[in-house]
Amino acid sequence: MIIMKADATKQEIDNVIAEVNKLGLRADVSRGESLTIIGLVGDERKIPFSYLSVLPGVRDAHMIETPYKLISREYSKAFQEPSENRVIHVGNVEIGGETPTYIAGPCAIESRTQLFRIAEEVKKAGAHILRGGIFKPRSSAHSFQGLGAKGDEEAREALTWLRDAGRAFEMPVLTEVRGENQVDLIAEYVDILQVGARNMYDQDLLGVLARKSKPVFYKRHFGASVEEFLSFSEYIAVEGNKDIILCERGELPIGKGKNFTRYTLDLAAIPVIQKETYLPVMADPSHATGRRDLIYPMSCAAMAAGASGLAIEVHYNPAESWVDAAQAITADELKKIIDDCNRIHGLTAGQNKKVKAGK
Amino acid sequence: MIIMKADATKQEIDNVIAEVNKLGLRADVSRGESLTIIGLVGDERKIPFSYLSVLPGVRDAHMIETPYKLISREYSKAFQEPSENRVIHVGNVEIGGETPTYIAGPCAIESRTQLFRIAEEVKKAGAHILRGGIFKPRSSAHSFQGLGAKGDEEAREALTWLRDAGRAFEMPVLTEVRGENQVDLIAEYVDILQVGARNMYDQDLLGVLARKSKPVFYKRHFGASVEEFLSFSEYIAVEGNKDIILCERGELPIGKGKNFTRYTLDLAAIPVIQKETYLPVMADPSHATGRRDLIYPMSCAAMAAGASGLAIEVHYNPAESWVDAAQAITADELKKIIDDCNRIHGLTAGQNKKVKAGK
Amino acid sequence: MIIMKADATKQEIDNVIAEVNKLGLRADVSRGESLTIIGLVGDERKIPFSYLSVLPGVRDAHMIETPYKLISREYSKAFQEPSENRVIHVGNVEIGGETPTYIAGPCAIESRTQLFRIAEEVKKAGAHILRGGIFKPRSSAHSFQGLGAKGDEEAREALTWLRDAGRAFEMPVLTEVRGENQVDLIAEYVDILQVGARNMYDQDLLGVLARKSKPVFYKRHFGASVEEFLSFSEYIAVEGNKDIILCERGELPIGKGKNFTRYTLDLAAIPVIQKETYLPVMADPSHATGRRDLIYPMSCAAMAAGASGLAIEVHYNPAESWVDAAQAITADELKKIIDDCNRIHGLTAGQNKKVKAGK
Amino acid sequence: MIIMKADATKQEIDNVIAEVNKLGLRADVSRGESLTIIGLVGDERKIPFSYLSVLPGVRDAHMIETPYKLISREYSKAFQEPSENRVIHVGNVEIGGETPTYIAGPCAIESRTQLFRIAEEVKKAGAHILRGGIFKPRSSAHSFQGLGAKGDEEAREALTWLRDAGRAFEMPVLTEVRGENQVDLIAEYVDILQVGARNMYDQDLLGVLARKSKPVFYKRHFGASVEEFLSFSEYIAVEGNKDIILCERGELPIGKGKNFTRYTLDLAAIPVIQKETYLPVMADPSHATGRRDLIYPMSCAAMAAGASGLAIEVHYNPAESWVDAAQAITADELKKIIDDCNRIHGLTAGQNKKVKAGK
Repeated sequence: MIIMKADATKQEIDNVIAEVNKLGLRADVSRGESLTIIGLVGDERKIPFSYLSVLPGVRDAHMIETPYKLISREYSKAFQEPSENRVIHVGNVEIGGETPTYIAGPCAIESRTQLFRIAEEVKKAGAHILRGGIFKPRSSAHSFQGLGAKGDEEAREALTWLRDAGRAFEMPVLTEVRGENQVDLIAEYVDILQVGARNMYDQDLLGVLARKSKPVFYKRHFGASVEEFLSFSEYIAVEGNKDIILCERGELPIGKGKNFTRYTLDLAAIPVIQKETYLPVMADPSHATGRRDLIYPMSCAAMAAGASGLAIEVHYNPAESWVDAAQAITADELKKIIDDCNRIHGLTAGQNKKVKAGK
Repeated sequence: MIIMKADATKQEIDNVIAEVNKLGLRADVSRGESLTIIGLVGDERKIPFSYLSVLPGVRDAHMIETPYKLISREYSKAFQEPSENRVIHVGNVEIGGETPTYIAGPCAIESRTQLFRIAEEVKKAGAHILRGGIFKPRSSAHSFQGLGAKGDEEAREALTWLRDAGRAFEMPVLTEVRGENQVDLIAEYVDILQVGARNMYDQDLLGVLARKSKPVFYKRHFGASVEEFLSFSEYIAVEGNKDIILCERGELPIGKGKNFTRYTLDLAAIPVIQKETYLPVMADPSHATGRRDLIYPMSCAAMAAGASGLAIEVHYNPAESWVDAAQAITADELKKIIDDCNRIHGLTAGQNKKVKAGK
Repeated sequence: MIIMKADATKQEIDNVIAEVNKLGLRADVSRGESLTIIGLVGDERKIPFSYLSVLPGVRDAHMIETPYKLISREYSKAFQEPSENRVIHVGNVEIGGETPTYIAGPCAIESRTQLFRIAEEVKKAGAHILRGGIFKPRSSAHSFQGLGAKGDEEAREALTWLRDAGRAFEMPVLTEVRGENQVDLIAEYVDILQVGARNMYDQDLLGVLARKSKPVFYKRHFGASVEEFLSFSEYIAVEGNKDIILCERGELPIGKGKNFTRYTLDLAAIPVIQKETYLPVMADPSHATGRRDLIYPMSCAAMAAGASGLAIEVHYNPAESWVDAAQAITADELKKIIDDCNRIHGLTAGQNKKVKAGK
Repeated sequence: MIIMKADATKQEIDNVIAEVNKLGLRADVSRGESLTIIGLVGDERKIPFSYLSVLPGVRDAHMIETPYKLISREYSKAFQEPSENRVIHVGNVEIGGETPTYIAGPCAIESRTQLFRIAEEVKKAGAHILRGGIFKPRSSAHSFQGLGAKGDEEAREALTWLRDAGRAFEMPVLTEVRGENQVDLIAEYVDILQVGARNMYDQDLLGVLARKSKPVFYKRHFGASVEEFLSFSEYIAVEGNKDIILCERGELPIGKGKNFTRYTLDLAAIPVIQKETYLPVMADPSHATGRRDLIYPMSCAAMAAGASGLAIEVHYNPAESWVDAAQAITADELKKIIDDCNRIHGLTAGQNKKVKAGK
C-alpha cells in the first residue's frame, strides 16, 4: 500500500501509478478527503517498497500482509494447514497439547555425575524433558564457555552423557546449538535443537537446523519485537519444518538505574503469539530474571498467561553451579513450581483456550 | 564510593583523598591488585559525586546506598518503621492485606447514568474500589480530554457523581489527578488520588498530593526503571505520607515492527518491589495491553506473580466507550477474572509471601 | 483506514461498512488479492479507531493522517501558514534564521554574583541567550531542587537576578517551568519559557504556558518517539502559539552494561523534524551526555546535522557547580565551540537547507 | 567487590569473608557508617560473582575491572601495547590515521557490470575502500538474500568480481561474513572481513574470523550497550588480532509511534569508544537512517564527532538497487559528502584528538 502526502500533486500521483504499472502490478486508487491511497494488487513480498517510498509525493509505502504467513493462523488455510494448535511429539512427550510441558536441567553440563544426579531429581519432580548446556554463549571471552569449547572429543563426551541421561530417566533431551558447525554433531545425540536468544537472527543457523527435521526450541531475542520473532521463525518453516517451540525469555530492561532482573519477561507475548500462530509458546523464567527467588512467581505467572510449558535451570547445589549460579533452583523447588503450575493450568486453561481461538 | 583507574598515579589518588577531606568526609582507601577504591564515610546524599567523578585518575564515583530509604525494607528499622508489609485502609477496604483488592470502573466518566450502572455491575462482580476518569491524559490535543476539561463546573459535577456512586454501592472511589491545580478540587471528593504514568516524574504534583494525607495510587512511567520509580516515590514519603499503592502498567515495547500490545507489562517488578519495599503493588492490565482479549490472561498472571490487586477498566458496552474502547471488558468478564484470580491467589499466596520476606 | 483479515468473511466486511456508515462516515472499499482495505472519508480525528479495531474480522484500524497538522509543513498551506522555516524573534535575537543561536548559562542559579559573572563570560564567548535554572527537576527527593524550592521570595529574587543579568549583558533570558503554578511568576521575568524533558507529556502545563504568548523552548522526553514529540507540540500550537523551539536532548540508552553517557543524543531527529515541521530545532549536548569532555564533539555534530542552535551549560568553575558539575564547561571552552560550530554551519548550511526543503 | 546490606549481621559478613577465603581470594573489608564493602583481591575474571551475590546479607557483588582489558587504553601498558591510537594498514590505505577513510559501494552486488561501474564512480568521488554485499542478512525469509545464497559457484563468482574491481580501481575490498562456513571462502578474496550488527554476539564466528589475521570491520548490535560491544570485541582480540575497526550503526528507536529513521545513530559512542580503546571507530549512516536524504547531515555529524571514517552505500541509480533502495546515494552525492567531511575533519580534528587523549 502507498499513502500519498496531503499536498501531493496530481502529476505525482499519476507518476506513482505509472511506476506501479511498470512493475507489473495493478494500482487501486482511493481518493479520500485529504489523502490518496494506492493499493497494490500482486505478490507483496516481491514489491520494492523501499524504492516506492522515496518517489516524489509519497508519504509512506509498506507491506500490509503478515510477513509470517507459513506459521500464521490467518493464512494457515491457504497453506492447507490445520488452524488448530500444533502438537509436537518427541518420544512420549507432547508439547502444545492439553497439559503443560516442563524442561529442566543444569545450565551447563559439568560432569556425568552432576548430570545424572540432576536428571534423576528433575524427573522425580515432574519434568518431561532434560536440558543441559554444552556450548554456552557468554558475554566475556574470558569466562567458561561450556565443555564443548574444550574440543570435539569433550563435546562428544558431554553429548553422550546427555543422551544417556535422557535414556536412563526416560526424557527426551535438548541442548543449545550456537553455530552452524555444531549442528551435525549435536543432532546425532539430542531430540530437540535449541536456538538461544542471541542467535535468533542467525538465518544461516536456522536454515541448517531446520533441515535436521527435529523440533526446534527457538528463543526470542532480547531486542526483537514479536513480529520480528515470528518473521524469523519463517526461516525454519520455509524449510518444511513446523515443529517450532517458541520461547519467551525477556526483553532488554528499560530506564536509568536498576531493574533488579536481567531482562523483562514479556508474558503478554504468550497469548499474543498463540493467537497469531498455531505454535506452542513456552517461557524461560531462569534466564529472564537471573534470580532464583523470582523463578516461582514468574513460573506461575507464565502459566497463568497460558504458556505451553516452562524451561527452568536446576542444580542440586545452586551455589556450586559453574554458570549462572544465581538463577538455579533445587529439584524440591522445581517440584513445588510444577505442582502449583499444574493447578494454575487447571484453573485457567479453559478460558485461555478461548483467548487463543479468538473467541 | 570512588573507583580509581588502573593507571591512576599516586599523586592522583592523594589528590582525590585531599578533595574528599576538604568536603568534610572521611576516605577509606582500599588498594587492590590492580585497582584502588576509596570509600566515603558521611551522608552520601550530600556528596557531590558528579564533581568527584571528573577528577583526574577517577574511573567512577557513585552512591552505593539505596536512594529510597524511607520506603525500603532494608532501612525501615532505622526509621522506626515496621518492616512488615504496609496495609492501607480506605473505608472498609484493605490494600496490601491478606486478600487481593480489585479496582474497577469506566476509563472515562461519561454521564451519571453510565457511572451508576457500571458501579452497580462491578460491585456485584466483586470489585472493592470504584475508578472513573475525569481528567484524561491524551496523546492528541484534538481528542476528548475527559469531562474535567470542559470547565470547573463540569469537573465538580462529575466528581459528585463519582462520590455518590461510591456511597451508593459502598466502594471508596479513585480518580486521576493530572496537575497540581486539580488537587484541591479532587481531594474534596475522592478517597484515593491517582498519579498516572506520564506524571510519575512530576515532583511538584507528588508533593502537593502527598500533603492531602490520602492514599496515593502511583503508576510507574513506561520509561522508568524500578529504581527510578521507587526513588520518585520518596517525593510522596518525604511528606510523611506512606500510604502509597504502587502500580505496574507496562514499559515501552522493544524492537522493530509490532508487539501487538501497547506496553510490556513487567510482572517481575511486582515481587521485586515487594522485596525492596513494604508497600503494596498492583497491576493495571487494561492500559498495559490495550486489548480486551488479553485482560484475562494478564490479570491471572499478575496475581500469580503476587500482585496485591488489580485495576481494570469496565464498561457495559465496551464498543460504546468514549475512550480506549479496545481495552474495556464487561462486568461478567470481570467476575470471571476476580473469581479465578482469587483462586490463584489462594494457591500462590503462601509461597509468594516467602518471596517478599526474602526467605 | 481499516484493514480486514485475510480470512474475513463477506458478512464481517459488510458489518464493518455498516458500522462505519452508522458513524456518519463514507467507506471506500478496496478489495485486493488477499486483503480488503476500507478507507474512511471524514474527519479522522473524530473516528473511534479503538472501537473499530475490535470488530470481528478486522486486523487493524488506524489514522493515517499526520497527528500534528498545525505545525507540519505538509498541512501548513491548509492552515494558511507559510511553509518556510519559522523564524522566532526575541529581542534582537533570531532563532531559526540564517545563523545559529547559542543559549548558555549555569545549570542552576546559585547567587547574583555567580550569575552575573557567568552572563558576562558567555556573552563575550558569543552566546545570544542566557539560561539559568531556578526550579530544578531532580531524581532524588533529597537533592538540591533549585533556589525556587526555598520559597516564593527566593524564587522571585533569583528571577530578578536573571532578568537583570539579561538586561545588563543584552541577552534575552530563559528558565525552566516545572509546574503550572510557576507559570505566572516566571512569565513576569523571562523571555522564553522552557519545558523540560520530564514534562514533555504535561498537557496542562503546555496549555497554560502557551497562553502566555511567549516563545516556548520545548524538550523531547527521553522515552518519546519523534512522532509523539510533535503530537504533544500541538498542545502548544492549538492555543495559537507557534513560537515553539524544539530541542533534542537524548533518548534512554540501550543494552546491558554501561553506555558512558546519560542519554543517546538522536541527531537524525534534527533534520527529520525540520523536514516534518517549519519549526527551529536545537540540541542540548550538556544534558544528553552529562560529560564535559563530550560537549565539543557533540556540539559540532549537532551543528553538522543542521541544528538551529545549541543550549550549553557553563560555569566559571565547573567543579564547584552545585548541580551537574560533570557536564559544565568554561566560557573559554564555549568560545571554541561557538567558533568551530559557526564554521561548520558555514560549510554545511547550504546543503542542509536543501534537506529541510525536501530537495 | 561485594556490598553488604545495611542490615547485614556481623555473622553474615563473617560468612561472606569465609566464603571468599575458601575461593583462595583475599578480602579487604571496609566498614562505612551504614554499609560494609568487601573488596576482593585476585583475578576478577575467575570470581563467581553470581554465587557470591546470593549469599545472605549481600546486596550486590560485581566485577569492577574493565571487561575489555586487551583493547582498553587503561590497561594497554600492562599488555605492552602502545596506548596511542592504532593505525590499521590495508594495502595503501590507513584506517585510524591522520585523515578520514571512506568505504563505499553497493549494498548488494548484482552483476559484474554494476559493481565495476560503481567502483569506478566511488573511486573518483574519493572513496578508499570498496564494499559490496554477497551474503545479505534479511528480515524476511522470502526476500533476496544476496548472490551468495544461490550457491557456492555464484558466491565465488561474485567474490571474484569484488576482488577484481578492487584491483582495477586500486581499492582494498570488504564484504560481510554472515556465518562460520563462509569464512574460508570469503577470506580468499577480500582484504577486510565485515561482521554485521546481527552477528555482533556470535562468538564462534568472531573466533574463526579473527584467526584469519585480516582486519575485521565490526558493527555494534542495535540492542548492545557500548560496554557489551567492547566486551565482545575481546573475542577477536583474544585470538591475537587487534586490527579491529569498530563501527557504530544505530540503536533501536525508542517510544511509541514513528521515529522516521530505521535506527538511532549514537554518535557520542564515537568519542566515548575512542577514549576507552585505541581502536578506530567509523559510522554507517546508510543502515542507521535507511534514508537517502539523511546521509549528508549524518555523515557530516559523524565526522564532527570525530569518526575515523564512514561506510556509505552508493548506486548509480538508487531506485534500481535490489536491496535498500531508499538509502543509497549517487557517487556525485558521495563526492559532496567526502569533500565537506574532509573540511569538517580539518576543522575539528585537533580538538577531537585532545578528547580522545583525555586532555
